[in-house]
Amino acid sequence: MKKLLFLAVLLILASCNNKDSSSKDYKDASLSIDERVEALLPKLSLEEKVAQMRIFHANIGTKPDENGKLKLSDKVIEKLKLGIAGIKNPGEHIDAVAAAKLNNELQKYIIENNRWGIPALFVTESYNGVDAEGCTKFGRPMTSAASFNPELVRRQWDVVGREARLRGMHICHSPEADVVRDPRFGRMSEAFGEDTYLTTQMVKNAVMGVQGNYEGLGNGTHIGAVAKHFAGYGQVLGGSNFAAIEISERTLIDEIYPPFEAAVKEAKTLGIMASHGDLNGVASHGNPELLTGVLRDQWGFEGYVVSDSNDIARLFYFMNVAESPEAAAQMGLEAGIDIDLYAEDSYAYLPEMVKKNPELEKLIDRSVRRVLRTKFILGLFDNPYIDIEAVKKGVRAESSLELAKESDLESIILLKNEDNALPLSKDKSLKVALLGPLLKENTKEMFEAVAGNNVKFIAEKGFQLTNQKGGAPELLDRDPKALESLVNKAKSADVSILFLGGDEHTSKEAYFSSSTLGDRATIDPVGPQDELIERVKALGKPVIVVLKHRRTLSINVISEQADAILDTWDLSEFGDESAARIIFGEVSPSGKSPVTIPRSIGQIPFHYSMKEINYKKEYLFLGKGPLYPFGHGLSYGDFEYSDISISNAEMTTDTELEVSVKVTNNGSVKAKEVVQMYIKDEIGSVTRPDKELKGFEKIELDAGESKTVSFKITPKMLEFTGIKMEKVLEAGDYTVMLGTSSKDYLETTFKLKK
Amino acid sequence: MKKLLFLAVLLILASCNNKDSSSKDYKDASLSIDERVEALLPKLSLEEKVAQMRIFHANIGTKPDENGKLKLSDKVIEKLKLGIAGIKNPGEHIDAVAAAKLNNELQKYIIENNRWGIPALFVTESYNGVDAEGCTKFGRPMTSAASFNPELVRRQWDVVGREARLRGMHICHSPEADVVRDPRFGRMSEAFGEDTYLTTQMVKNAVMGVQGNYEGLGNGTHIGAVAKHFAGYGQVLGGSNFAAIEISERTLIDEIYPPFEAAVKEAKTLGIMASHGDLNGVASHGNPELLTGVLRDQWGFEGYVVSDSNDIARLFYFMNVAESPEAAAQMGLEAGIDIDLYAEDSYAYLPEMVKKNPELEKLIDRSVRRVLRTKFILGLFDNPYIDIEAVKKGVRAESSLELAKESDLESIILLKNEDNALPLSKDKSLKVALLGPLLKENTKEMFEAVAGNNVKFIAEKGFQLTNQKGGAPELLDRDPKALESLVNKAKSADVSILFLGGDEHTSKEAYFSSSTLGDRATIDPVGPQDELIERVKALGKPVIVVLKHRRTLSINVISEQADAILDTWDLSEFGDESAARIIFGEVSPSGKSPVTIPRSIGQIPFHYSMKEINYKKEYLFLGKGPLYPFGHGLSYGDFEYSDISISNAEMTTDTELEVSVKVTNNGSVKAKEVVQMYIKDEIGSVTRPDKELKGFEKIELDAGESKTVSFKITPKMLEFTGIKMEKVLEAGDYTVMLGTSSKDYLETTFKLKK
Repeated sequence: MKKLLFLAVLLILASCNNKDSSSKDYKDASLSIDERVEALLPKLSLEEKVAQMRIFHANIGTKPDENGKLKLSDKVIEKLKLGIAGIKNPGEHIDAVAAAKLNNELQKYIIENNRWGIPALFVTESYNGVDAEGCTKFGRPMTSAASFNPELVRRQWDVVGREARLRGMHICHSPEADVVRDPRFGRMSEAFGEDTYLTTQMVKNAVMGVQGNYEGLGNGTHIGAVAKHFAGYGQVLGGSNFAAIEISERTLIDEIYPPFEAAVKEAKTLGIMASHGDLNGVASHGNPELLTGVLRDQWGFEGYVVSDSNDIARLFYFMNVAESPEAAAQMGLEAGIDIDLYAEDSYAYLPEMVKKNPELEKLIDRSVRRVLRTKFILGLFDNPYIDIEAVKKGVRAESSLELAKESDLESIILLKNEDNALPLSKDKSLKVALLGPLLKENTKEMFEAVAGNNVKFIAEKGFQLTNQKGGAPELLDRDPKALESLVNKAKSADVSILFLGGDEHTSKEAYFSSSTLGDRATIDPVGPQDELIERVKALGKPVIVVLKHRRTLSINVISEQADAILDTWDLSEFGDESAARIIFGEVSPSGKSPVTIPRSIGQIPFHYSMKEINYKKEYLFLGKGPLYPFGHGLSYGDFEYSDISISNAEMTTDTELEVSVKVTNNGSVKAKEVVQMYIKDEIGSVTRPDKELKGFEKIELDAGESKTVSFKITPKMLEFTGIKMEKVLEAGDYTVMLGTSSKDYLETTFKLKK
Repeated sequence: MKKLLFLAVLLILASCNNKDSSSKDYKDASLSIDERVEALLPKLSLEEKVAQMRIFHANIGTKPDENGKLKLSDKVIEKLKLGIAGIKNPGEHIDAVAAAKLNNELQKYIIENNRWGIPALFVTESYNGVDAEGCTKFGRPMTSAASFNPELVRRQWDVVGREARLRGMHICHSPEADVVRDPRFGRMSEAFGEDTYLTTQMVKNAVMGVQGNYEGLGNGTHIGAVAKHFAGYGQVLGGSNFAAIEISERTLIDEIYPPFEAAVKEAKTLGIMASHGDLNGVASHGNPELLTGVLRDQWGFEGYVVSDSNDIARLFYFMNVAESPEAAAQMGLEAGIDIDLYAEDSYAYLPEMVKKNPELEKLIDRSVRRVLRTKFILGLFDNPYIDIEAVKKGVRAESSLELAKESDLESIILLKNEDNALPLSKDKSLKVALLGPLLKENTKEMFEAVAGNNVKFIAEKGFQLTNQKGGAPELLDRDPKALESLVNKAKSADVSILFLGGDEHTSKEAYFSSSTLGDRATIDPVGPQDELIERVKALGKPVIVVLKHRRTLSINVISEQADAILDTWDLSEFGDESAARIIFGEVSPSGKSPVTIPRSIGQIPFHYSMKEINYKKEYLFLGKGPLYPFGHGLSYGDFEYSDISISNAEMTTDTELEVSVKVTNNGSVKAKEVVQMYIKDEIGSVTRPDKELKGFEKIELDAGESKTVSFKITPKMLEFTGIKMEKVLEAGDYTVMLGTSSKDYLETTFKLKK
């Protein structure tokens, strides 16, 4: 009886609420976003709702005609009648102004051609700049990670957000919040490295940058982020795209989730994308525990979840966890996927499915609310169009290009510098040979511009690593003549700079074709690169290597032969200029390796933060520790660490400590250094990492200058998932390490008392 | 009030029970084992109880003196005053009769020198025969696994059990029930391969064999088994001994636990040993969920759990999950470790600890009950001594040696046989060169005995792979003269048989020394073995390879160059004789590979039963599928599979199906074949394996003979751990594959209806 009464009251309240909402006008900008969503949602037909849950790719028919005017295919016209959640990459192949104009036209068409005037989200990708014609190209995320400078990342992604919005975009399917620990995986450089803390800092700043700090999203200057791929995609088994993922619950919570959690809770990302893979047997796109339990119930995420390309349909036709496309659609919907990316044969079935199972409409409403809410947050109902004048000065602004260069200079890692082989002097007469497969057409020109008149350059690429006959790229055979010619060039020079590593085919997103080289079973350099450096080195003159690559490579021979190695990963469009500036000593290198560099693929898993008990593998054949450790990077400065001190030898659960170290630049040039703090929990109720990065600070010191760098140690930093799968903070001994890499540091200790 | 009354009744019952037990005589063999245990336990002092929870190694002082009489060190005499759970390896270095005598003396001393006359367990290892002087040496478990003949394994382990008991042993710390999937791990060949089902069959039969089917344990003819290492030890990260283990819960239940579960529930193993590693962060020796929850509460295990060597103490000094040795002892005790193997500084502290925490004595009693129960089951209180006359005829009986040979012949895998290079004929005049680093001193002699007079042999080892200067084994440099000499020998012969692979140092249990070669980062053959076969093959004459090894090797070059390859893993003491008999056609090979053979370490994980979605990695560089698939093995027969049929296209949850296939031997010799049944669940609520072995049968067919082989398909076979972590049986489509390997089969389908 009581229950019935309660239900009746609820019903009355609900109907009042309904009436209330529907009497309001969703176009009224003075209402709250929730009020506007609730005012709009009930007006939509079921088909219109489902349209708000689908994104199609612009390549199905939204091109400009010969006069630059929008031309829609019949297919697109048909789709837009009901409205649409969004369109991927409209105007990607035209310049920013043209794109902005086209996208204004497209948005106008969409608004005017669905009953409620609902605008669409225009979506791009942007891991190293907006993935579209004419935008600033920064280094890849792995490159930025090497800067150990989150503020730089925030500024880069701020530029990305601004340039994207100016092109008419509203959302980017970036950044990658995956912790990547398998260098066989072709997409490794799209993320920020092996470390949870470093990745978390970078992801948080990327989201904040691209969103303009969230609060400003309605101003129309920035775009929404979509952190991906939730969860575990950095650890696909065997480094193989689309493979299963096997990570224990504790590792997920402590090592894989934190970048996502920070993206949600601290940076307020508008969206999250699910992962292609399964997670311990459960397909991520059909995983309510992950997409609703962890993301929403635990973290309070209020944005939307988008599928990866076709992945809801793939629950049926690829993952084999759904019996039909309809079952796949229901699985995705129930798990909490709000938007279906691309699939023609998945959420399209929802209207029919609701006829048989009316309960599903509640879940549809849940998703549509989230999509509409996103559009209101982005101000699309109120200000759907771009000011074309702003585009001209906003995209590829001088300051943005300068930022790309600044980022490069902070991201180049000096792995080795035997007998101070670097920097080279601009002041003496010198003949330099620029050689090898990763040389670009404009490399010589860039080096000449940097080095001035005393230095003469010769340049020869010699050979390529791969070619692309017809469709599939192939590894190329060794070309003895090309090698001979390169060696002759080196012979004629005083110094050789070899451009080695991997090209755009040897590490990339791998699809299913048997001919894709993207994921690999070895991480040895391909082609005759080892032979090249051995032969050039045998000439008895200095050999400098500029390493360009998109996955970690086990560069054993290169490392042995080179006098100096600049590890540049994949820099901005100005990368070779930046390398030249470092080589000729304009700037001291200050990048640090965001990954452990193993001697061979047989050493993995091999991140620095593994359990101490894993390090016993240093007895393995070929396995005498890493080739270069995480956090390693040399400088033209000469940094001495001294005077480590801690504010108290004891800590309680509600106090903080301060630990500090004096860093002195004993060198003769100004230089930046990344001071790194690692903490080790000496004894835990579960086996604990050998050490974990818990802080870092990039400082700049003049020659002879000293600075004391301090870090706070908070109880929060010491938490981990204990034996009962709850976060615990355990009393006992801790070691704090402050130093220049994960293998080179001073240490002190403290005790946590409870 | 009710509660109090209930408690009072319980107390009264308990005290009655106590009186009852203590009034009985534990020496009275007419009582039940439980009655005898309860009669004995209360008599023991706390120190005597703890003594029943410790095993020490015989090498601390139980040797025979110069007259073969038992001589105990002071340390041992002191220990034995309180009694002891057991002693490891007493008499291991003396022959069986001498050992039996010595062990009789030792047991007598123990019984007479503790207050209650409690005998000790004498413990050995026995993965390929009793690990002691003068016992029959079988092939390693991986070798036996290749036989795909569980009955053969049962007979082998029956011999092991008998020989061990005749030496005076009562327990073996064998078999390994670990599913091994990382060929970098040096101990890989101590287990039965990559497959859960095959391992389960072999482990179950090993335990049944060594225990003489459990019921007979009291007869004094067999010994108790200890299945190890619980759990996950086959997957130590990086293949590195003692490293952490990371396996998701579902994989543990469906793929790692079943061999242990069968050992407990079906074969009634007396003991279980915990694993060195942690399991997803929780040290296995301190894991109550595993050692008590899974093992006892779920599976009803009633035996005892023993630590691996020193591993309880290691919770403190190595795993860093306990704050002190005492905390480690408590952790082990609470988790459910009943016996501490070796550690001087762990359970030794229990008596002192009980003074501060009397509750611990209940846990001590729990463990001591299990140990005493084991001793009663083994009949040690009633018949503690060995009949020396029986030892003479029982150990190394002719039938046992014949069984070792029989097992070899069933375990040799013919990986490749180009143009029927094998068998060689004994009838023609032939000169055969036996060459290479894995040649043994008596190889030539064994080949001569098999081949008869027409065949002439020359033999030269040429070079070794490793040597052991002082302590640590080292890889040897290439020896050009040795290579030259081997090639010259090959030149002078009609056929070369190369003995290649790995030696006793390149794959073994690895300790912490930086010089141990046991675990490895690559699985390429070491030394100039590839060069040797290339040069011999270049002579243009047939090259046969006998591959001996203790880990999977990626034998790309060997595989390309050899005309035929016998993969022998590590056969019995008669291994080369067995290889010769196969090479000369006395017997057709019938072994099947118990592992997937990858092309490089970069392909792992790479077991055949991975999720289908993992197989996309076949696009990887170097990764075009396995070099040889699981289940592969050729024959001198020529088997044709035809007429696959299934009893019904539909199955219900309480019916069974029968699937059958006709196998015809179209060859000209009698031969054995392993008919394999794989099942694939086409769609599951969680991602499902590509296929799973669910049955196999070894048959023998005369030339021209046909046989129809049938398998039952039961609902139980189709169960797996579903989305809610409970066992489920799901309706839908299944494919059944019957064939000669995991890649070569006929298939049919059925539908499960619910």
